[in-house]
Amino acid sequence: MLTIYIIKIGGNVIDDEAKLKKFLADFSLIKENKILIHGGGKIATEISKKLGIETRMVEGRRITDAETLKVVTMVYAGLINKNIVATLQSQNCNAIGLCGADANILPAVKRVHPTIDFGFVGDVSENEIKAKPIQALLGSGLTPVIAPLTHDKKGSLLNTNADTIASSIAVSLAMEADVSLVYCFEKKGVLHDPSNENSVIPEINFNSYQKFKADGIISEGMIPKLDNAFSAIKKGVKKVIICQADTLKDAIRTGTNTGTILLNN
Amino acid sequence: MLTIYIIKIGGNVIDDEAKLKKFLADFSLIKENKILIHGGGKIATEISKKLGIETRMVEGRRITDAETLKVVTMVYAGLINKNIVATLQSQNCNAIGLCGADANILPAVKRVHPTIDFGFVGDVSENEIKAKPIQALLGSGLTPVIAPLTHDKKGSLLNTNADTIASSIAVSLAMEADVSLVYCFEKKGVLHDPSNENSVIPEINFNSYQKFKADGIISEGMIPKLDNAFSAIKKGVKKVIICQADTLKDAIRTGTNTGTILLNN
Repeated sequence: MLTIYIIKIGGNVIDDEAKLKKFLADFSLIKENKILIHGGGKIATEISKKLGIETRMVEGRRITDAETLKVVTMVYAGLINKNIVATLQSQNCNAIGLCGADANILPAVKRVHPTIDFGFVGDVSENEIKAKPIQALLGSGLTPVIAPLTHDKKGSLLNTNADTIASSIAVSLAMEADVSLVYCFEKKGVLHDPSNENSVIPEINFNSYQKFKADGIISEGMIPKLDNAFSAIKKGVKKVIICQADTLKDAIRTGTNTGTILLNN
Repeated sequence: MLTIYIIKIGGNVIDDEAKLKKFLADFSLIKENKILIHGGGKIATEISKKLGIETRMVEGRRITDAETLKVVTMVYAGLINKNIVATLQSQNCNAIGLCGADANILPAVKRVHPTIDFGFVGDVSENEIKAKPIQALLGSGLTPVIAPLTHDKKGSLLNTNADTIASSIAVSLAMEADVSLVYCFEKKGVLHDPSNENSVIPEINFNSYQKFKADGIISEGMIPKLDNAFSAIKKGVKKVIICQADTLKDAIRTGTNTGTILLNN
């Protein structure tokens, strides 16, 4: 069975040029089929500010109005995505940068909320994700690099959470491949004690996760990420790894002692 | 033999939302394999201005310094490219948006000039263009939409003329396909009399082109475009059509009376 690594990096790596370059060099060395999903980082907020576009947050979430959608399209699918691709190409990784409208890989539905208008925000469904074009690109020896934008099939792009895109793509490919999903994170992994960076929990299965949650050991911010990860595992993803970007190389080799591995047992 | 239409649109179409939508609807209806190459338009200049980045022109050419490269990457490969893709997807055209770094389709060399530093500007060579990944995408039923950026294979993107990209891709694909190259242009075609919009020359071959040049009938601004077009024809491109964007549908059907067709005879 084909092995595929799906790796997600967030703003903390993207915003740091040296860290990003080092991460991409490590990513390039992965010999198996691989897909990189990247988040946004601070650049979109900075550019919005310079362009005089107000960043509106409601209940801690960014509202994507028409002007903000333009900025995230420029920054995520243009600046960040294409610079990652050019760097990977210089490292002999044959990358191809995409957003969810490209080859219709990520059709989505504009979010409807009873009281908050989130604007151009999209929710993907695993059943709608087009695994075939992604498999075809991998089959041609290409490495997809995916920006966190989807589309509504009616001509509009939509801003979408990169963690969700990563897990949804993982699930959609898991039917026909041995898929590992890696979330690169600011911390070394899931921590026993949030104040102790070295208290990484090396392995969690669904039962121990329930216990950690009940005991209040896993902090509130991690819960959506882990719920999402266990949902992917239940739907066929072989394992989910949560680690720091600079330990990627070690973390994807089983048996090493870095990051947290979520398993289906 | 496979038929491929390679169509280039410039700023006059991109800057006009209604015109662009109509053009993309016509483009979507082309049943044969097709590739769209788009230029930049005024948006990059507007965004540069808003961001406080000075547009520097030397001898009528834009200098692409590091900050300008960021803007054109955002605008060409992000905003323009992905909105075209999302629109085409809504019109049932399975588009995939790329820049020259993606799948390494357009490796280029940073321009060296004895006296002017153009900055991050790249020149492509037809022999270097990767026809294989483009053919593979077409073979998967995808329609590449290409932004005018190339890369130096050392990690840097480069700003590159869209007309040249279009003709170079046409030449690289002409070895194994029946390629027509269409330049959509502000005017109705190549004009006998620049002041008379209806004086379109319906057909030009290389000999009549030499005569038109010698007689001063073809205006100076058209000469680089036509030199480029005849060079593509000499290298195997079957025909080049120069027409207005809103006559695309008619222009690609031989025998119709719109635009100028350049032929190899």
